[in-house]
Amino acid sequence: MHPKRGADKPHVVVLGAGFAGLTFCKRLTSGLARVTLLDRQNHHLFQPLLYQVATAGLAAPDIAQPVRSILRDRRDVTVLMSDVTGVDLARREVSHTGGVLGYDYLVIALGGRTSYFGHEEWARHAPGLKSIDDALAIRRRVLSAFEDAEVEDDEARRGKLMTIVVVGGGPTGVEMAGALAELSRTVLRRDFRRIDPAKARVILVEGGPRVLGAFPANLSAKAERQLRRLGVEVRTGVAVREIHEDGLELASGERLAAANVIWGAGVSAVPLAGTLGVPTDRAGRLRVEPDLSLPGWPSVFAAGDIVSLTDPSGRVVPGVSPAAMQMGRYIARTIAGELGTVTPPRRKPFCYFDKGTMATIGRSAAVAKIGWAEFCGWPAWAAWLVVHILFLIGFRNRISVLLQWTYSYFTYRRGARLITGLDPEREAQGAAPAAGPENRMT
Amino acid sequence: MHPKRGADKPHVVVLGAGFAGLTFCKRLTSGLARVTLLDRQNHHLFQPLLYQVATAGLAAPDIAQPVRSILRDRRDVTVLMSDVTGVDLARREVSHTGGVLGYDYLVIALGGRTSYFGHEEWARHAPGLKSIDDALAIRRRVLSAFEDAEVEDDEARRGKLMTIVVVGGGPTGVEMAGALAELSRTVLRRDFRRIDPAKARVILVEGGPRVLGAFPANLSAKAERQLRRLGVEVRTGVAVREIHEDGLELASGERLAAANVIWGAGVSAVPLAGTLGVPTDRAGRLRVEPDLSLPGWPSVFAAGDIVSLTDPSGRVVPGVSPAAMQMGRYIARTIAGELGTVTPPRRKPFCYFDKGTMATIGRSAAVAKIGWAEFCGWPAWAAWLVVHILFLIGFRNRISVLLQWTYSYFTYRRGARLITGLDPEREAQGAAPAAGPENRMT
Repeated sequence: MHPKRGADKPHVVVLGAGFAGLTFCKRLTSGLARVTLLDRQNHHLFQPLLYQVATAGLAAPDIAQPVRSILRDRRDVTVLMSDVTGVDLARREVSHTGGVLGYDYLVIALGGRTSYFGHEEWARHAPGLKSIDDALAIRRRVLSAFEDAEVEDDEARRGKLMTIVVVGGGPTGVEMAGALAELSRTVLRRDFRRIDPAKARVILVEGGPRVLGAFPANLSAKAERQLRRLGVEVRTGVAVREIHEDGLELASGERLAAANVIWGAGVSAVPLAGTLGVPTDRAGRLRVEPDLSLPGWPSVFAAGDIVSLTDPSGRVVPGVSPAAMQMGRYIARTIAGELGTVTPPRRKPFCYFDKGTMATIGRSAAVAKIGWAEFCGWPAWAAWLVVHILFLIGFRNRISVLLQWTYSYFTYRRGARLITGLDPEREAQGAAPAAGPENRMT
Repeated sequence: MHPKRGADKPHVVVLGAGFAGLTFCKRLTSGLARVTLLDRQNHHLFQPLLYQVATAGLAAPDIAQPVRSILRDRRDVTVLMSDVTGVDLARREVSHTGGVLGYDYLVIALGGRTSYFGHEEWARHAPGLKSIDDALAIRRRVLSAFEDAEVEDDEARRGKLMTIVVVGGGPTGVEMAGALAELSRTVLRRDFRRIDPAKARVILVEGGPRVLGAFPANLSAKAERQLRRLGVEVRTGVAVREIHEDGLELASGERLAAANVIWGAGVSAVPLAGTLGVPTDRAGRLRVEPDLSLPGWPSVFAAGDIVSLTDPSGRVVPGVSPAAMQMGRYIARTIAGELGTVTPPRRKPFCYFDKGTMATIGRSAAVAKIGWAEFCGWPAWAAWLVVHILFLIGFRNRISVLLQWTYSYFTYRRGARLITGLDPEREAQGAAPAAGPENRMT
């Protein structure tokens, strides 16, 4: 299947509409090539705010935009919603569920997925947070546990229902734990009659010696203090030994009975990376050349979380959205420079520019490192807000998120406390409620 | 399981947190009784706007509010999210998945469900529209069909993917068909490269002689004209004979190949109504006394769509939200008047006050009948907007819906074009993406 327009122009195929793939499409000079962008989802997701959908602060559409809507004015870009099933580098072909695409240039930006370090059986008890569906599943599970606790008479079962364990003390885990503590201590506080949501336990487990290991030690300490102030129990330096239906066991032997375990500990590359026959690192990520091309395949690039790279300054490029966007931009410039030139310029190596990192920990509190400057508390939180609003794609989304945040800030409420998808099995059977079990009547 | 507070006060159990049940709880004088409200969902749903979630105009949280959040200041009301499994009128007990509740007064407000007139097997091919999950499923199916059409090479299959049939010409069907036509003709128009969404067929099938059969004939005619102007093919006076995977067959013998069939034709009472041993009508609804009590059970009331009643003026009370709210209010007054009185006043019959009906048909067009006055076009549309914003529950929701509508009006875009829940089977297995099929990689 080939797009119709400009069949004479070189064909660039882009796999993945995350930060890397989308930035590439937007930045490639218009009209130079036919571009086909494949993604299994119809939307680009603003992942940094995904935890807010999981904790009922934002609605799913607030942080996602249809890919084809973002690129509607790029008539040279065709967007296909389809699953990539394989790449044949020798034949320069990509197979996907809807057919086969030949390419002149290929950009692999398929990102990562939740990794359980060989314990894939933990997935069903400890969902990760990579997609809108993941976030909605966590929201459903967490809110349902409080509902079940209100009905439950047994003390022990009630305690389990009101315990949430977050595994992984990186930014995702820290932001998640902070938001969950706020949810139970302020948002839900006055809504129940038989339980006291403020007594819910939120436990953050981190295998390393401190939370936010990528930040300077004093910011880690501040983040941990802020988490404790919100009521989060922080356990550092202890690994997870087992996760099962009833909760989890730590390497220390401690058992935590918890209805909800949320996994924010590991990410690895999507499996396709391992099928290309090129070197990968321990997390399955592609070891690319300094110009982000695959070794031996100069017209095939990789970008974003699927890449493992140490840049010329000796810095390991982190798996964060600014790095992905910089890679997308770099590859767009490289390809644009080579198209229509008989003797393409020599490629310069990709250099990552670290604009800083930040993590928010509940209301009015955050930590941030921007260049040499370190912030915490209110200034870091304000910076976090501004950056996240600015980088959200779409005017509507920015206004809507600002509105939700303003509302939540002043009312201590959250606007998306919906339990949806109650009965996934019903949906799997394709049946409408009429065909559902007779006892579900309310 | 009994609530703790005020155990000496009479216990009122309310089944269902729709318009009837929620209005009852809000209107019953505070402190007179212990009230327990049961619902299988955690949210009250503003059903009149559900079609806008199904057609990507609004996000799900915009039209729903957590029940316990709405009633947070009513300390005498306990909300339990639980499925009702049975009512024992003789023992004055309600069983639900979390236990058994005794009652002094019972209000049954469980509403209706999609009915396929004995063809329950149609449910999997023609989803109805009663819950948030229904709406999200329809949104997923409709948006996915356009995505699949963009990838599809075969002309016939592409035509099927781009055909949507709406069965039922009542307000739900009319509003749905209008919104779908607008979606394909304006919103999606410039976003695809290989298909022209404006060529999508939207067909509205109605068994009766005209659409909006409950409206005056001239308004029906205007609504039909407006639908045709939007590009909807309207087929009246023809019943559906069969619905299957490939589309549907009409009684006229015509076959319509359609990837999406949406069912807006029938509603019946939930099955519980049939288990009470009291008279029901053909749609399974409870035939109540003029005071909305069940015959022979003066302390058991029914309200909302589960009720079949002709009021003293000889008018059949319609299954619309104003009627449900009026019933809830009436029962609250009745019970409040009897509590704490040795000789309760004689109950007056319930009278339905018809405030009018309206239906919107796309941008700037609607029909409305308010008292003797009939409107159409822009004035009816403006009235529709004002009424729907006013009756939405929650300040945040009102602002958010206003924002979305303003945005859509000026940009011809829709803010909730998300395909979520792509793989319900995965969810049913409780597995995170990591455990998903290896070929889903993008």
